[in-house]
Amino acid sequence: MTDSQFQNVKINRDRLWNDLHETCVWGKGERWGEGNTDIGMKRLTLTDSDKQVRDWFVKTTESLGCKVSIDAMGNIFAVRPGKKDGPPTYAGSHLDTQPTGGRYDGILGVHAGIEVLKTLNDKDITTEYPVGVINWTNEEGARFPISMIASGVWAGAYSLEKAYSLVEVGGGSATQKSELERIGYLGFLEASYKANPIGAHFELHIEQGPILEKSNGKIGAVEGVQAYRWFLITVKGADCHTGTTDFKNRSDAMLTAAKLILHSHNKATEMGCLASTGILTLKPGSTNTVPGLVQFSLDIRSKEDALLLKLEEALKAEFAQIAAGEEAGGLNTLGTRGRGCTVDWQLDTDSPATKFHEDCIKCVEQSAKDMLGTNAAPQVQRMTSGAGHDSVYTSRRAPTSMIFVPCRDGVSHNPAEYCSPEDCGNGAQVLLGAMLRYDQLRAEKGA
Amino acid sequence: MTDSQFQNVKINRDRLWNDLHETCVWGKGERWGEGNTDIGMKRLTLTDSDKQVRDWFVKTTESLGCKVSIDAMGNIFAVRPGKKDGPPTYAGSHLDTQPTGGRYDGILGVHAGIEVLKTLNDKDITTEYPVGVINWTNEEGARFPISMIASGVWAGAYSLEKAYSLVEVGGGSATQKSELERIGYLGFLEASYKANPIGAHFELHIEQGPILEKSNGKIGAVEGVQAYRWFLITVKGADCHTGTTDFKNRSDAMLTAAKLILHSHNKATEMGCLASTGILTLKPGSTNTVPGLVQFSLDIRSKEDALLLKLEEALKAEFAQIAAGEEAGGLNTLGTRGRGCTVDWQLDTDSPATKFHEDCIKCVEQSAKDMLGTNAAPQVQRMTSGAGHDSVYTSRRAPTSMIFVPCRDGVSHNPAEYCSPEDCGNGAQVLLGAMLRYDQLRAEKGA
Repeated sequence: MTDSQFQNVKINRDRLWNDLHETCVWGKGERWGEGNTDIGMKRLTLTDSDKQVRDWFVKTTESLGCKVSIDAMGNIFAVRPGKKDGPPTYAGSHLDTQPTGGRYDGILGVHAGIEVLKTLNDKDITTEYPVGVINWTNEEGARFPISMIASGVWAGAYSLEKAYSLVEVGGGSATQKSELERIGYLGFLEASYKANPIGAHFELHIEQGPILEKSNGKIGAVEGVQAYRWFLITVKGADCHTGTTDFKNRSDAMLTAAKLILHSHNKATEMGCLASTGILTLKPGSTNTVPGLVQFSLDIRSKEDALLLKLEEALKAEFAQIAAGEEAGGLNTLGTRGRGCTVDWQLDTDSPATKFHEDCIKCVEQSAKDMLGTNAAPQVQRMTSGAGHDSVYTSRRAPTSMIFVPCRDGVSHNPAEYCSPEDCGNGAQVLLGAMLRYDQLRAEKGA
Repeated sequence: MTDSQFQNVKINRDRLWNDLHETCVWGKGERWGEGNTDIGMKRLTLTDSDKQVRDWFVKTTESLGCKVSIDAMGNIFAVRPGKKDGPPTYAGSHLDTQPTGGRYDGILGVHAGIEVLKTLNDKDITTEYPVGVINWTNEEGARFPISMIASGVWAGAYSLEKAYSLVEVGGGSATQKSELERIGYLGFLEASYKANPIGAHFELHIEQGPILEKSNGKIGAVEGVQAYRWFLITVKGADCHTGTTDFKNRSDAMLTAAKLILHSHNKATEMGCLASTGILTLKPGSTNTVPGLVQFSLDIRSKEDALLLKLEEALKAEFAQIAAGEEAGGLNTLGTRGRGCTVDWQLDTDSPATKFHEDCIKCVEQSAKDMLGTNAAPQVQRMTSGAGHDSVYTSRRAPTSMIFVPCRDGVSHNPAEYCSPEDCGNGAQVLLGAMLRYDQLRAEKGA
């Protein structure tokens, strides 16, 4: 196909919008506005509502002429035949949501893939290699607490046993395996990139950040996913009375934690990284007792693994200095030097930086330019994903890239998450073009 | 009596030590060491164990020739007659403890008062005016959640109805009134300084801080109790993803709270006050979500009411500036200016500064010098109490002072709270001398 031919294969934007919202009857969440679709989603993985949307997915893709197979993690692969055999070029994402999620995160990526199949049928296009759509299981990690677990098993990052034995959060006793069995999605196909290889993986997703919206960008061509490391930081001091203990005689774990959190921000700013604290607990928890124990989460991120490690090393050294009352980062300049605290680091999650495949990235960029025309340049932006996605794992075993579209105010994991019909359509159109371009590239290379 | 006569009236230190620990069989708490008395206390007010020690108090003081009366708040007044009638010169404190308390906080003060009575009996001394011992109800506020409530009712700071209707913490339904009735300590005497006046109030207490111990002090002559105000501070930002949201686009309530906590410390240092945060909660509480809401307690203290208000005013203005990202206190110098947060203040407790009576303070000082002799000067120190005590309320209606003795490492409200036999004895000896000196002063003044 020529460039002008690619440009003329157009998805049906209204159909996509309608299909997407029709499936959101399964797992309705909180209403946040007056409109028909102003209702969030609560479709936790492997629940009854997840089974309903999975059944719809299988029925719909089979009706489009796809062969559907389900692997041992409940991942669903719908494949439309091409001229030749070979691992399919996939659109993939997930239909599960957070407990207070919206109707775009993950869902849009799967629907856009189905819209690609519908468009190919409408236009009677046969691709060089098979193309397909994947619905990955439990991307969110909200019910069974490891995110991207099923694409992780497929990629060999987790064992099947570990994934099966995960117990639901919130006090229930269901495991990921028992729920796969219960809803009839424990498949026969091995959950493995070896048994079930992928030719390429394209994932359309809302950005979940404000960068595109703020810069009037329309399409993000995602180059990779930043590295992140999650720590549990424990600050130990000593409980004492807030009224009877002067500052000099305190080992104030909360004051020290405040300094460390601020310093992690200052240092991350200096080094062009991110640092965030989302959880903090303290003991004993009384207005007139200086806390002797504080634990807080520290999430640090960078595009580069080496830079992230450099940040970690700096923070480890400087946290200890600050806690001991030494001069570091200006945190002990103005106050009173007390008796000091100790700081302990525990690594909970290590996710190295992911680099997507240049061929795939270029297909996304070119497809975006096909759609946007002569003024495309500032509206198509190369980006790094801040969050993890199933594409992190597929990229370990197959050429991968992602397509980002703006979401309102960068809000996601929230009922009011919103992606406009225009942006949803733009994303699906770019997905179609990228898949067709990549299919042609494979044929040219004979891959 | 002459100075040398005062010096020769000596309490029985062994008897005091033995009596104190013998009553600690009622309400034993956690064991923290190997010794016979290395066991903390859990004698919550108006429980069965509190009834047992109250019964012992009544029986013991009656056996010493006292007239015992109980008021409507269960406060117990044991009075030994003097040469003349009139409001008694009292030693007062409390026999109730924290749930994980020790065996000195409050208990020592009551026992020292009883040891004073025993010593007067041994020496056959008749004071000019009556002398006595008070056991105040629920000083701790641990079971029924207002501390010093019963001395507060006596002083007219709280209504009897409010005190009676307090419900026990922890989910039970007992009220302070129902428990007073249940254990037989709802007395007939009106709980009021008018119906039951006090001539003077001396309270021996462990310091609950490290100042005396650190400075080799033996006796603190307490001039008053510092002012404190407790606030609930609410910081509102916006939840967002830690990976997908750059610093500029965040309204990070946790980072802002960290800056405010640090600034409260820095400003309190600058102004010679105290500031502490003992409780902090945040929402939503996920490692990869920037918290949109943080609430924390802020306890600020000063010897002077005016200075405390000045600190509060400064913090109110500067918290708002810091949260908005403006330059204040150096807190926004190094990091990234985000979208800002809002700060709301709620006043929960207002306890103005208390000044004790100079006559009483001087009696304590002179009595300490009687005991310590020529080297007394550095070992007797004028102090301000950081914590509240029943003496705060008695001082509103009668001449009052307190005597502090060191406790190990300044630790209290902890099973391992410890005051040595020497310091317990020192405290009781100074209490005796102060009460005798004040009694003589009253007689001289004809009060």
